[in-house]
Amino acid sequence: IEKIEWDFEAAEKAGYEHFMLKEIHEQVSAIHNTLAGKVSELEGTIDLKELNMTDEEIRKLSRVQILACGTSWHAGLLGKYLFEQLAGIHCDIDICSEYRYRSPVISDGTLAIAITQSGETADTLAAVREIMSYNCPTLAITNVVGSTITREANSVLYTRAGPEIGVAATKTFSTQLTLLYLLAVKFALSRGKLSPNYVKGFITGLRKIPGQIQQILNQKEAVKECAENFAQAENYFFLGRNLNYPIALEGALKLKEISYLHAEGFAAGELKHGPIALLEKGTPVVTIATRGQTYDKVLSNIKEVKARDATVIAVADNKDTEIGKYADVVLTIPQSSELLSPLLSVVVLQLLAYYTALARGCSIDKPRNLAKSVTVE
Amino acid sequence: IEKIEWDFEAAEKAGYEHFMLKEIHEQVSAIHNTLAGKVSELEGTIDLKELNMTDEEIRKLSRVQILACGTSWHAGLLGKYLFEQLAGIHCDIDICSEYRYRSPVISDGTLAIAITQSGETADTLAAVREIMSYNCPTLAITNVVGSTITREANSVLYTRAGPEIGVAATKTFSTQLTLLYLLAVKFALSRGKLSPNYVKGFITGLRKIPGQIQQILNQKEAVKECAENFAQAENYFFLGRNLNYPIALEGALKLKEISYLHAEGFAAGELKHGPIALLEKGTPVVTIATRGQTYDKVLSNIKEVKARDATVIAVADNKDTEIGKYADVVLTIPQSSELLSPLLSVVVLQLLAYYTALARGCSIDKPRNLAKSVTVE
Repeated sequence: IEKIEWDFEAAEKAGYEHFMLKEIHEQVSAIHNTLAGKVSELEGTIDLKELNMTDEEIRKLSRVQILACGTSWHAGLLGKYLFEQLAGIHCDIDICSEYRYRSPVISDGTLAIAITQSGETADTLAAVREIMSYNCPTLAITNVVGSTITREANSVLYTRAGPEIGVAATKTFSTQLTLLYLLAVKFALSRGKLSPNYVKGFITGLRKIPGQIQQILNQKEAVKECAENFAQAENYFFLGRNLNYPIALEGALKLKEISYLHAEGFAAGELKHGPIALLEKGTPVVTIATRGQTYDKVLSNIKEVKARDATVIAVADNKDTEIGKYADVVLTIPQSSELLSPLLSVVVLQLLAYYTALARGCSIDKPRNLAKSVTVE
Repeated sequence: IEKIEWDFEAAEKAGYEHFMLKEIHEQVSAIHNTLAGKVSELEGTIDLKELNMTDEEIRKLSRVQILACGTSWHAGLLGKYLFEQLAGIHCDIDICSEYRYRSPVISDGTLAIAITQSGETADTLAAVREIMSYNCPTLAITNVVGSTITREANSVLYTRAGPEIGVAATKTFSTQLTLLYLLAVKFALSRGKLSPNYVKGFITGLRKIPGQIQQILNQKEAVKECAENFAQAENYFFLGRNLNYPIALEGALKLKEISYLHAEGFAAGELKHGPIALLEKGTPVVTIATRGQTYDKVLSNIKEVKARDATVIAVADNKDTEIGKYADVVLTIPQSSELLSPLLSVVVLQLLAYYTALARGCSIDKPRNLAKSVTVE
């Protein structure tokens, strides 16, 4: 029996102006709690007993099918990159409202992973019922104990984020990502794609993330100032490549949800294939430019954006001395591995959305037209 | 030896105000030409000898991997739905600039399909080289004879669209779709998923498409009037489900490219998971509401949009007497099968983008910041 108690206090604002800001801060403890008992730095192992799968079963997997909506879909998209890059398993991801109607092909050896904060998302439940009707084993990633999905899925991994009151998901997103990292690395280990030694380093890096998020939060005034400077923009672009592409999509969605600004996220390489036509003098273009194999390509994208007189807000490593030559504003994150940096970059984008909405006088915790969980189709 | 001659005259405007409008009209003949010699209505067969694959080889396929950028990526996304729904083959689709860097998993029995109008798109060529380095057979769909991709891919299917001068792709998109329909139905036939009798009906329907596009063009004044009424909107939304989801994305991209309006396309079911927060009184929401299995769900989405006082522009069948009760504006297409209707709906969206840009005084054939083919990364 799994017992997760929710502190009543945790559902109050505890001095923060909004639940969303409180929940952004709570990511420090939420990620820590989600990791608790699941990783051994000493041995380089990951223990996910709730998964109920032997190494042998993990080796036999031929594909992962992720099912999710909204913010959870963005977490899942990053999961796809992780499962393929780290574990070498084919991974499909579908929007649940689409999956139900598109006669998907389901092959033997598929594990379905459904991601839903509330565990009650109607489209997600329907997609899960669809795939389970083909006897496909299904793992749920959710935040709510006793929710409908926990009764239907074959196994459940909980994000230990505690109650999330703000409609715009923050700490549930980063804890969903945390679990997807653990799953992908666990699968990679079982399939001999990563060595225990590599995994030790990975775990060391992952354990540092909560403290590094705290560092970002300590410098939140810089993000606030940036947000205020661009709060009256008409459009906002978000660009990222590879693991940062889903983060760019998520950054845009946060801004849409609470500030009502038209923001759109793109894979940076797609800019030239159409969307660049929209850029005007001063259009803010948030570009995730942390160090990694696509760093040079991202710098090229930044130069393209600058050539159109748009304004580049770069999210970059705090050790990067080059980026300041090209970007108009640089928002920094502490140094981490390329693999884990999305967990840090997203916090900057959450703060950017929060302070933009604040400057625009929007109703942050209960944005217009939105419900916390979408329990109708 | 394949010989495709381009008429010099065809590269002139022939009385149209812009190449784009001319090319929208040329879809009638372009689709006709693309079909020529490839379908037998009498026998219910599809002949794609350029494919160089026996029925046996087609039966052995375990997956299709589509590689494309921009508008071609939208064609490919519709292809994914077709390959899975009709032929029961797993299909992945990737943005080329992402594919190159994300360590994709490539399994035996994969056919890669690269889609590029020019045959010179740098990111697409790089992605093709990447996948071909794994000895994965690759089919190119392109419009330009002798282009780089035709020399590198194992086989080539040509869109017989003739030269496309307007930067915003129109006739190359619908002919790419035409070839993807033929491929998916051919695969379905070879794999015993569709009967020759069904295919006869499919071919009959497909042959009607050029004439039905002509009917839409004959009524283009209605689209023009609609475009003019909303030309000063700040944001535009495009919604579709299933086969119409890629069409919604394409409709939004056309509007972005030539009218510089911030337009975004969504799977209609995703609206509630965030983007609905952006809707304001009067925001135009183009919704593809042609008859089909998700018609009722789309009607629900329309009601949600109306409840936020936004304005619904529905693309619907001309026999639909119900839709007018819910939508503010109805733009009609001739009756066709659910499967083929995207080939008609997209023409309405192309015209909408064209007349919106015209009303806004934009440079239609050469939009700012864009090149016809993106030959740099």
